[in-house]
Amino acid sequence: MTRVYNFSAGPAMLSEDVLKQASEEMLEWRDEGMSVMEMSHRGKAFMSIAAEAEADLRQLMSIPDNYKVMFLQGGASSQFAMIPLNLLSGKKTADYVNTGMWSKKAISEAKKYCEVNVVASSEADNFTTIPDFSSWKLNPDSAYVHYTPNETIGGVEFNYIPDTGNIPLVADMSSTILSRKIDVSKFGMIYAGAQKNIGPAGLTVVIIREDLIGNAMDITPSMMNYQTLSEADSMYNTPPTYSWYIAGLGFKWLLNNGGLDTIGEVNQRKAQKLYDAIDSIDLYDNPVEKQYRSWMNVPFTLKNSDLDAEFLSQAADKGLKTLKGHRSVGGMRASIYNAMPESGIDTLVEFMKEFAKENS
Amino acid sequence: MTRVYNFSAGPAMLSEDVLKQASEEMLEWRDEGMSVMEMSHRGKAFMSIAAEAEADLRQLMSIPDNYKVMFLQGGASSQFAMIPLNLLSGKKTADYVNTGMWSKKAISEAKKYCEVNVVASSEADNFTTIPDFSSWKLNPDSAYVHYTPNETIGGVEFNYIPDTGNIPLVADMSSTILSRKIDVSKFGMIYAGAQKNIGPAGLTVVIIREDLIGNAMDITPSMMNYQTLSEADSMYNTPPTYSWYIAGLGFKWLLNNGGLDTIGEVNQRKAQKLYDAIDSIDLYDNPVEKQYRSWMNVPFTLKNSDLDAEFLSQAADKGLKTLKGHRSVGGMRASIYNAMPESGIDTLVEFMKEFAKENS
Repeated sequence: MTRVYNFSAGPAMLSEDVLKQASEEMLEWRDEGMSVMEMSHRGKAFMSIAAEAEADLRQLMSIPDNYKVMFLQGGASSQFAMIPLNLLSGKKTADYVNTGMWSKKAISEAKKYCEVNVVASSEADNFTTIPDFSSWKLNPDSAYVHYTPNETIGGVEFNYIPDTGNIPLVADMSSTILSRKIDVSKFGMIYAGAQKNIGPAGLTVVIIREDLIGNAMDITPSMMNYQTLSEADSMYNTPPTYSWYIAGLGFKWLLNNGGLDTIGEVNQRKAQKLYDAIDSIDLYDNPVEKQYRSWMNVPFTLKNSDLDAEFLSQAADKGLKTLKGHRSVGGMRASIYNAMPESGIDTLVEFMKEFAKENS
Repeated sequence: MTRVYNFSAGPAMLSEDVLKQASEEMLEWRDEGMSVMEMSHRGKAFMSIAAEAEADLRQLMSIPDNYKVMFLQGGASSQFAMIPLNLLSGKKTADYVNTGMWSKKAISEAKKYCEVNVVASSEADNFTTIPDFSSWKLNPDSAYVHYTPNETIGGVEFNYIPDTGNIPLVADMSSTILSRKIDVSKFGMIYAGAQKNIGPAGLTVVIIREDLIGNAMDITPSMMNYQTLSEADSMYNTPPTYSWYIAGLGFKWLLNNGGLDTIGEVNQRKAQKLYDAIDSIDLYDNPVEKQYRSWMNVPFTLKNSDLDAEFLSQAADKGLKTLKGHRSVGGMRASIYNAMPESGIDTLVEFMKEFAKENS
């Protein structure tokens, strides 16, 4: 078996420890005589798996008691509709920050249900920066403020948490959740598709302050109603049980490895190593303003794009896979979530140096 | 390792062959150096897995070319909203048949979006029968007719496919899909949560005639719009990739074991053995009219319900698990989907005989 360094933006690399345990437990979980995949979600065994995963996530992120944690389906794209459907609470307007493609998708979906006030945008800068908070035009009548702390495609990231006062702050953390310690109490709601830094695709984690639940519009499908889902403890219907279990294995792996403070240091160091290589080697370029560069998604271009195919091919030969950049940006993208070991970064940097030398 | 006979109604037993292959491939799929769980859904490897699963399902069910097959999230409960949101097509009314708890849930959700005309109901008979088609009061102005071919809780099943003429027939086949050969062309749409007879929870299969796509209401979330989902080949957002892969392993297992004609014969025989035991042993009872008894979900009660706990405990000791009936019905329920081997039925029947003898 030869596992590669997989730089996919999501679904993404998982810890080998997690996969090994999943493989070993596939036919029988503990003494239950069945796979987790075969367990009734109402049975004691799965209920214990689900509860332990939630408890571990609460511990990792220090989630306050007045927040509900939900394990749902549908990805961030479903949340794009669920947020206005649930949080408008009779108001007509919501504030959105536009810092990249995922912000734009959230805005576009919200427009079905409300007026969207774009309080700040970095589109004129081709999404290579983050708008300074002092420039934001917040609307005091808005139901909430939505933003995307980390944009997976642009590789651009907030280095601050906006203070929106009494207006709830809603964050799409799909590509940055669990990458470092954050103060959950500053948010009304945090949500994340699991397939980047949590676990398998098909699971969505929602962390929401309890007082924001209970005002869904009449047209809201039951499966999109936070009250319905939360009152049923994420089991209004059969939840994605196996993905929930895998996410739990990942939470345990993080706890066993020092929690978010430790992984945060590792992630910062990994990113710094890669940006240092990009900045110091003439062949490579990253357009993002330095203070807003993402720790998780590192896009870079080759000054001569004719070399792209050769770069990807030689990288693959060295076990460095899925480095091709998003079609809208071109070049390369290295997504380096928690499960990407530091040795993956070292191997990539070494290869980038060699490749530049050979092609200078 | 001791695997049990798991009679859970869903998530449910999976073929040991499928689980073994999943376990073996968990850390590395073929020569890709990564788990299926870690693969980009846009990469060649996963695209081939996805396409093969769809092709195998099409072959198994002989799905005509003018039907789209989608691999979605959200379970049947999401479809309960998606169906009216997408299929009303400007009409105000939809026809629903009420044959049990799942029918009722579908009806309740549809009422958010349209007038529901209940064309037939077996509620007065405590859901122990299926309304004769001649009694149905179809509304010619309805957009579609919805029914539940097999009710998981009541263990009651249609032994005919209603002929609704030009009005599209929509079927919740969550607990009966792939249990035997059916004529897909008689349906406008078939949908099924995967966690009973397909694979892991968190995947939903939708088979829909193409001409029914494209008329969603304006309020429809993108993730609930069949046109959006279908134009993106189920990849409008990141699909539940690992569940799709496991479903594909299950389809291959069925194909390698003779397809739906063969499994249909096995399923009929399995059900018959169990109903014969229930009918012939004085201790047990099943209330469903014989011609409408489910092949997949076999509820039965003990004439003396004081013995329930002892029955369950002794059954568990023999490796017969998850036999407790749904709380709304009581007693026992044996869900015997495709992956339940005939030896599981034989072992259960043998135990039922012994238990009755000891307690007569």
